[in-house]
Amino acid sequence: MHTFEDLAVQFSERFSRDHFPAHPKTLYDPNRYFLKLGGKRIRPVASLMGNELFNDLHHDAWHVATAIELFHNFTLIHDDIMDKAPLRRGLETVHQKFGTSTALLAGDVMLVSAYEYLNQVDLKYIHPIIQLFNQTAKEVCEGQQLDMDFEKQQQVFFEDYVSMINLKTSVLLAASLQMGAILGGAGTGNQQLLYEFGRKLGLAFQVQDDYLDAFGDPQKFGKQVGGDIRSNKKTFLLIHAMETAEGASKERLEQLLEGDEKTKVEEVIAIFKACKVDDWARELKEKYIKEALEHLEDVAVLSARKEPLKQLTSFLIHREQ
Amino acid sequence: MHTFEDLAVQFSERFSRDHFPAHPKTLYDPNRYFLKLGGKRIRPVASLMGNELFNDLHHDAWHVATAIELFHNFTLIHDDIMDKAPLRRGLETVHQKFGTSTALLAGDVMLVSAYEYLNQVDLKYIHPIIQLFNQTAKEVCEGQQLDMDFEKQQQVFFEDYVSMINLKTSVLLAASLQMGAILGGAGTGNQQLLYEFGRKLGLAFQVQDDYLDAFGDPQKFGKQVGGDIRSNKKTFLLIHAMETAEGASKERLEQLLEGDEKTKVEEVIAIFKACKVDDWARELKEKYIKEALEHLEDVAVLSARKEPLKQLTSFLIHREQ
Repeated sequence: MHTFEDLAVQFSERFSRDHFPAHPKTLYDPNRYFLKLGGKRIRPVASLMGNELFNDLHHDAWHVATAIELFHNFTLIHDDIMDKAPLRRGLETVHQKFGTSTALLAGDVMLVSAYEYLNQVDLKYIHPIIQLFNQTAKEVCEGQQLDMDFEKQQQVFFEDYVSMINLKTSVLLAASLQMGAILGGAGTGNQQLLYEFGRKLGLAFQVQDDYLDAFGDPQKFGKQVGGDIRSNKKTFLLIHAMETAEGASKERLEQLLEGDEKTKVEEVIAIFKACKVDDWARELKEKYIKEALEHLEDVAVLSARKEPLKQLTSFLIHREQ
Repeated sequence: MHTFEDLAVQFSERFSRDHFPAHPKTLYDPNRYFLKLGGKRIRPVASLMGNELFNDLHHDAWHVATAIELFHNFTLIHDDIMDKAPLRRGLETVHQKFGTSTALLAGDVMLVSAYEYLNQVDLKYIHPIIQLFNQTAKEVCEGQQLDMDFEKQQQVFFEDYVSMINLKTSVLLAASLQMGAILGGAGTGNQQLLYEFGRKLGLAFQVQDDYLDAFGDPQKFGKQVGGDIRSNKKTFLLIHAMETAEGASKERLEQLLEGDEKTKVEEVIAIFKACKVDDWARELKEKYIKEALEHLEDVAVLSARKEPLKQLTSFLIHREQ
């Protein structure tokens, strides 16, 4: 068994190998460029931990972890096109640097590369692994579509936002853990519990993400505070504020959202605070974490084996960037 | 064993079922819309015929054929985005009707759906089938990237154009046949011969495609003659004309390509004729067909079993639209 940090280091080392053919460079260099931008590699590490919760690492665990990380990067390349995002991690996005058509194709071929790794999985596990991967991939696309649909809506209800985040963010973390559990030989009951742990953890992760955008420490956050507010992004915070603000406060919030005033970020944050959105978000995060840990508790393995996943939980939730 | 027409009818019937979940409609309705635009369904039928060349249809043959057709449609949706094409088969393309972001996602999820069908393949065949599918999918993306690269080049050599068409068009037909052969229990030698048959047939197919654009019968062609000429598309015809035209004729050709004169199409066709590009293209097509049929000849099965594939060859090559 390894710690979270151990696995993260080991995975990063293995993942830094070249995943693409030499030619045509016009197609594959953009992929190499994008993977070099880095990332926290949380999902592949989660899948390794899902495996080690039940058994020693299966030799296919690295293939599956690699497929998951390639898939995640494919979604980022395509999402950046859809969001017209010029930067990611402070550097140019693929479409910005190489053009939209190449970014589209580079993403496509990244997804196919993920399936190349999945196809190396032993026959014993290949059907359930690819089945879960496919289901999850579709759900992530569905989440992205719902997110775009919501952008056009005046109001989005909390429950609908949770459903969207569940698809767009949580199921991939949940499935990563479950794919590891499959390779670890877990029974379906334990697999399901781990999936639910991941799903709730993913929701908590997103609450934290949304929270940091408004209430993060600018010194530690690594990007400009208030980016979501500036771009009118629907977040846990905004949706709760729209549901709870009243009277002049609500009117002012709606007014701010429609315009692009200089004081927009600070005023919206002030309204958030007046509505106690910060307290509410912290409580919501705690609620999801509690539910996640209850599922983990119910997994029928020795308690000591669960330590790395508790470490992961703590890392995801206390991070400040 | 079935005829080409039989298999085409059977496949179309099966393929007309709904391949997507009900929700979110904003994501899946565009896919349903696009599949309803129809198509010749040549590749899936070729894979069924590749199976029947060696044995009765395997129960997975329909899954593989469906995956191939879904993959092909995924490439069309994304190609239309890259080409900024407003119409396909006379109707609005997905990005034109539903927006680029949705078209991008609809394509992504169509590709994942293809893998859902592939994952139903028996364990006996799943590794080689998905391996060939992945390799081909990557090559098709590579071909599309090279095609885009060529658009920016002043001159493209014949050999490079053939390499590009090989990737963009031929390998999918070749792989479709080979996937069928795998399910039919063919040995690797026979599989390879059938793959080469498909590859050459694909090249002949593209020569015919390029030929029809300039020399097709407008009454039968179904679209405006000269579309490739108008958009300065690199084709077998144009590349050969650039390589063989001389003096004033070559100068005029280059001039026409740079501009958008009213007489562009008729003048370019006149230069094609003066350079005997039409004769050359017919001979090139015949050469590819001959090579294709030699490979088919070498496949070690009873000659009678090869009849449907000869029918397919004839259909692809004598079509006038």
